[in-house]
Amino acid sequence: MTAEEAYTELIRRSKELGVLNSCAAVLAWDQQTYMPRNGAALRGEQMAFLAALSHQKFTDPKVGELLGAVEGSELLRDPESDASANMREMRRAYDRATKIPQSLVEELARVTTQAQHVWEQAKKTNDYASFRPHLEKVLALKRQEADAVGYKEHPYNALLDEYEPGTTVAELKELFSKLTAELSPLVKQIVASSKQPDRSLLAREFPIDRQKVFAEAAAVAIGFDFASGRLDTTAHPFCSGFGPGDCRITTRFNPRFFSEAFFGVLHETGHAMYEQNLPAEHFGTPLGSACSFGIHESQSRLWENQVGRGRPFWDHFFPRLKQTFPSALAEVSLDAFYFAINDVRPSLIRVEADEATYNLHIALRFELELALLSGNLTTAELPGAWNERFEALFGLKVPDDARGCLQDIHWSFGGIGYFPTYTLGNMYAAQFMDSARREIGPDLLADDFRRGEFGRLKSWLLRNIHQHGQRYRAGELCRRATGAPLSPSPLLEYLREKYALVFSVC
Amino acid sequence: MTAEEAYTELIRRSKELGVLNSCAAVLAWDQQTYMPRNGAALRGEQMAFLAALSHQKFTDPKVGELLGAVEGSELLRDPESDASANMREMRRAYDRATKIPQSLVEELARVTTQAQHVWEQAKKTNDYASFRPHLEKVLALKRQEADAVGYKEHPYNALLDEYEPGTTVAELKELFSKLTAELSPLVKQIVASSKQPDRSLLAREFPIDRQKVFAEAAAVAIGFDFASGRLDTTAHPFCSGFGPGDCRITTRFNPRFFSEAFFGVLHETGHAMYEQNLPAEHFGTPLGSACSFGIHESQSRLWENQVGRGRPFWDHFFPRLKQTFPSALAEVSLDAFYFAINDVRPSLIRVEADEATYNLHIALRFELELALLSGNLTTAELPGAWNERFEALFGLKVPDDARGCLQDIHWSFGGIGYFPTYTLGNMYAAQFMDSARREIGPDLLADDFRRGEFGRLKSWLLRNIHQHGQRYRAGELCRRATGAPLSPSPLLEYLREKYALVFSVC
Repeated sequence: MTAEEAYTELIRRSKELGVLNSCAAVLAWDQQTYMPRNGAALRGEQMAFLAALSHQKFTDPKVGELLGAVEGSELLRDPESDASANMREMRRAYDRATKIPQSLVEELARVTTQAQHVWEQAKKTNDYASFRPHLEKVLALKRQEADAVGYKEHPYNALLDEYEPGTTVAELKELFSKLTAELSPLVKQIVASSKQPDRSLLAREFPIDRQKVFAEAAAVAIGFDFASGRLDTTAHPFCSGFGPGDCRITTRFNPRFFSEAFFGVLHETGHAMYEQNLPAEHFGTPLGSACSFGIHESQSRLWENQVGRGRPFWDHFFPRLKQTFPSALAEVSLDAFYFAINDVRPSLIRVEADEATYNLHIALRFELELALLSGNLTTAELPGAWNERFEALFGLKVPDDARGCLQDIHWSFGGIGYFPTYTLGNMYAAQFMDSARREIGPDLLADDFRRGEFGRLKSWLLRNIHQHGQRYRAGELCRRATGAPLSPSPLLEYLREKYALVFSVC
Repeated sequence: MTAEEAYTELIRRSKELGVLNSCAAVLAWDQQTYMPRNGAALRGEQMAFLAALSHQKFTDPKVGELLGAVEGSELLRDPESDASANMREMRRAYDRATKIPQSLVEELARVTTQAQHVWEQAKKTNDYASFRPHLEKVLALKRQEADAVGYKEHPYNALLDEYEPGTTVAELKELFSKLTAELSPLVKQIVASSKQPDRSLLAREFPIDRQKVFAEAAAVAIGFDFASGRLDTTAHPFCSGFGPGDCRITTRFNPRFFSEAFFGVLHETGHAMYEQNLPAEHFGTPLGSACSFGIHESQSRLWENQVGRGRPFWDHFFPRLKQTFPSALAEVSLDAFYFAINDVRPSLIRVEADEATYNLHIALRFELELALLSGNLTTAELPGAWNERFEALFGLKVPDDARGCLQDIHWSFGGIGYFPTYTLGNMYAAQFMDSARREIGPDLLADDFRRGEFGRLKSWLLRNIHQHGQRYRAGELCRRATGAPLSPSPLLEYLREKYALVFSVC
């Protein structure tokens, strides 16, 4: 078999796996949206069948042979070629999948399924003690996973690799320490400001049917293609890109709070536009797949925050919003509304946090994850450590574990290494937006938004991010798109500038 | 390997196939209900992948070995045992699937996919000539299929076997000739009656949201379990039982015609209750699968017609219907409504036909299918033969092929042998209902219905039909449930009795 033949066969298998995995994505979407209650058991069997088949095909020793037959061949002489990029990422994924023993994969699935059930209950009843042994097991298995995969310096690096290939603990520590060092005093200043918004105007009657129409119109305006996707309602919002021509987003509506569904829809639309713009001809292969969790998150945060919480966006949409909700917003000014959606205040719950304090929530989790994984922090010490660090960062006492270390699902499903990608997303979003603004021209871009036009920004994202799939790792993609490595500065500058105006702080 | 071990492995494989096929069922349902327009290409790849995998697992030579290892063993000494029933049907399905060459399967898929597209267009433009070469190809391939499967007496028997195992052309001919001989004069009498209903009262304003609520309430009343299913809206109504705990039905609403959605929902609910009541522990094996297309159809027709177009049913539901549609039905009496939903008149279109003329539509198709397959009728002669026979049966001239031999999709997808199962369903429904009525007591059952109670009838169906899966072939199931082989008499008696009352004919 020639290298060309081996490569062609690898791509065929990769695309077949893409189709197989997209079947599971449809079933997972249905499970969250329309599946009747009693369908859960059968759905579990269906998902298990598809997952086992996918894993078996993915780790087939034949794949290893094919990879070997291509590597070192003339086919890869150009490191910038499609084949080189695809091979780099297929090798990475294959090695990772085959290094982890099947017994560990199964044990992780078993333990995390149970841990999620226990966590759900423990959060409801504020009972950390019941969750602790399960967290203990999850951590032990994740350490085994890190050992199996192999790592330099810190086992956390092996886990990070699943979400943010190429990023290291050392890099993250530096980014987070710079970010936290500047964010904490900024938040303190904001809290101390005598100028505070009236958040209650977002908590009036916003009929759900109108929220839906308004949010869908905004999604269309920024670029969601409803001929290639849908918006549905679920308990936990998400975006699922099945593949070319079919990407679905969900939200949840609160009839007494405007922001939840609307900014949620902008967020998921940002994810969806990335999926909708990946090159369809590469579907199922690395070149047709999103770069990393952090880059994916940058697309959602960019549209939700950088665009959707910006003044030019609302110059266009606010008159339409008032028409949609005439009684709730009758006497509300654009200034008051804009201030309300950009409120900053330390709060207990990550998912309800504003743009500034959000990253402090992540810094806390990153720090504790590192300590838990390395054994520097025991699960017995976790609640105390959480509460202590939380007070230091936010100036708030944590009243109970349900609103403290039990609030997030991630650790129960073994997602150690996942949290930092949220803040990476915020940083990438600010840095991408900063570059797009400078390249296109800040006035031109703001004028676009004021007219409800987003095509120029979309083109910039398509050209610099979406079309590349996994051609470059996240760090390299960032350097090529913005001319500089990832830095917390654009995010910090963006936040300082915005809050200087809205809160009159400097 | 012992016979026991081989049987256990066969059952494991059969159940795995059940799960695999149920994944495809979810995707097919999504395709009809919620899939965005541009998702069609990916969905095609997903379905092709799952179908190929299913076919490969189903026809694996290992299955043949396992079947051989069980057959003739002590395990099957009791012909009434679970194992005997499962083995009988697994052998039948395996032989059928492996006798048809893979090349023919692929050619059939290719030709019928194209034929369906052409048919759709040909029907729209009333252009039989464009469809004819495709029908010609389909017929040639179906003849090849019949030859590959093997048959006695008529190639049609080999095709019937796919829908109604064990039934023969000879049996069907006898049933249809008896049925037609009596139905034709009955319809003529009805048409000549001076008493005719006011059908226009069904064509008033029936707001869709209220139709939905009313139809769902009726579905719940007769026994659909919404915790294990859903009702959605599609262009073409259907029922899809994914497996235990998840069976979904669809309908289409016409805001200016009550009957379409309502009787459609009763029909699909009948199908769904069969699926919901199949023994869950046998899911994926013959004992957990529906007996035949005719028996499946009997369940939908029984609830739609025998129950849903009956007077006791409307004694209960009509007051509720008037409350739901107060303006449309203000001055309408129960008598007038009952007469309107039981109108009989010869019409051109099968799917709009009433209970009496419906079976004449099927008799026509059965006769022509037989002649086409055996070569006694050419595709060039089809439209003429259709129109001539139609006029003889219905006394109506067929104005064009779109409303004649082009009206149904079945021949374009290769469904030769499918049509007779509709009338088998009507006959089985009448015979089952007749037995249930006599066993339970006709007055007791009518009293149940007048109180909106259907539990006693449901139990009878569960006991006599649903719980058996494929334990017995349809003919044997009928003999056990009703004490007699299938006969057109109960259907004819039911129709004569009903129409004697509503049209004052005898």
